[in-house]
Amino acid sequence: MKRFYACKSNFNNNKITLSHSEHNHLKNVLRLKEGDQVICVMGDCYDYFCNILSIEKQHTILFVYDKKPNTANPKEKVTVFQALIKKDNMYLVTQKLNELGVLNLCPFESEYITAKDKNTKQIKLQEIAFQSSKQCGRSMPMIVSETLSFKSLLAQLSDFDAVLFANEKEKETKASTFYKSIKSEQNIAIIIGSEGGFSDREVASLLDFKNVVSVSLGTRILRSETASIATSACVMNALA
Amino acid sequence: MKRFYACKSNFNNNKITLSHSEHNHLKNVLRLKEGDQVICVMGDCYDYFCNILSIEKQHTILFVYDKKPNTANPKEKVTVFQALIKKDNMYLVTQKLNELGVLNLCPFESEYITAKDKNTKQIKLQEIAFQSSKQCGRSMPMIVSETLSFKSLLAQLSDFDAVLFANEKEKETKASTFYKSIKSEQNIAIIIGSEGGFSDREVASLLDFKNVVSVSLGTRILRSETASIATSACVMNALA
Repeated sequence: MKRFYACKSNFNNNKITLSHSEHNHLKNVLRLKEGDQVICVMGDCYDYFCNILSIEKQHTILFVYDKKPNTANPKEKVTVFQALIKKDNMYLVTQKLNELGVLNLCPFESEYITAKDKNTKQIKLQEIAFQSSKQCGRSMPMIVSETLSFKSLLAQLSDFDAVLFANEKEKETKASTFYKSIKSEQNIAIIIGSEGGFSDREVASLLDFKNVVSVSLGTRILRSETASIATSACVMNALA
Repeated sequence: MKRFYACKSNFNNNKITLSHSEHNHLKNVLRLKEGDQVICVMGDCYDYFCNILSIEKQHTILFVYDKKPNTANPKEKVTVFQALIKKDNMYLVTQKLNELGVLNLCPFESEYITAKDKNTKQIKLQEIAFQSSKQCGRSMPMIVSETLSFKSLLAQLSDFDAVLFANEKEKETKASTFYKSIKSEQNIAIIIGSEGGFSDREVASLLDFKNVVSVSLGTRILRSETASIATSACVMNALA
């Protein structure tokens, strides 16, 4: 069954109104008809099972005949801090991390990011997470925060039980050690730098935190987006 | 140090000739000068340390002053069988799997692939693996095979110690069980279907093999390319 997204404010008396792109997708792309069944999600933990009641010019009305708890929302608590990288790669990271079940994506600025990478808009990334959720089945998409300063990133780190810091200068500790050490109920963060990496000062300030584990991702130099996707996959697997 | 790729046939008397795109990249993109140092790789297990001897109109001559065993080539033996998917996603899979250290990528046809996805050229995928190797530091890129028929895929499966089959219909066995069961010296394969998945007949023929383990990748529906990248990351981590 095809999935659609609606705002809670468009839910009233067991009826949901789809408009704009969701309406357009239902009507003109998928060419669904009145009476067809769809699933609607509204950012809470339920899947709403609906019949299409009427398809108008500007909107579609769905009738909710059942709701069930969504089973694709992650139980794992994983937050990824991703330094700003090229827009297209940022989009890729957003889509893939949402599929993998990451809970929060926090883009951040650091010394060595490039000026033009600052233009990525939070609203666009959040939209990608919404669209990806319809495909992968989550009713609650990954939350994408506004871009953090490096200082704000540091201020959040003590909230986590353990933080994986992908450090290209780390020679001792392998990422696998980190994956083995974490437990399913824990609140985990991952920090991935930009292509330029981190300044010595930034590295030092990260290592000041007791819960931050500096790890090596191996002998090959991973692109930033690959590091983000690969570590998220391994952390999710370790917690599952 | 920047990395370049040359054919062994262009290596003679401690001199390497770069031409075409490699020459162009060195001269016009990176704007390197005579006397600058670079690393050249030639598909064997060495990094060749070179000085730029001369930069001509059509080619560059490098002088090899040292060679050292490359440390970024994977020791792990992982082959990924990837059903044909949209060209751009096939390119993404090729680049990411090469970075992660996969040894062989074997694209294959199956019943539910779409006709236009058959157009992906092996030579283009191999070129992507070469380019990615220069970035990630491998001197021996992942080998991309010609597209296999499903029958040829089956014929290869008995060569592996264990095969992860990402099966969307699997409800019992988690992928994590597979990751825990494999050992670093083993020859491992991963089978990832297209967006359309596998036919019942194909699933049955895969399950006929004793070494094939049908696994679930969790409650979220992963896109084919995400499944490929995520399982490769987890298998490489399990073997490391």
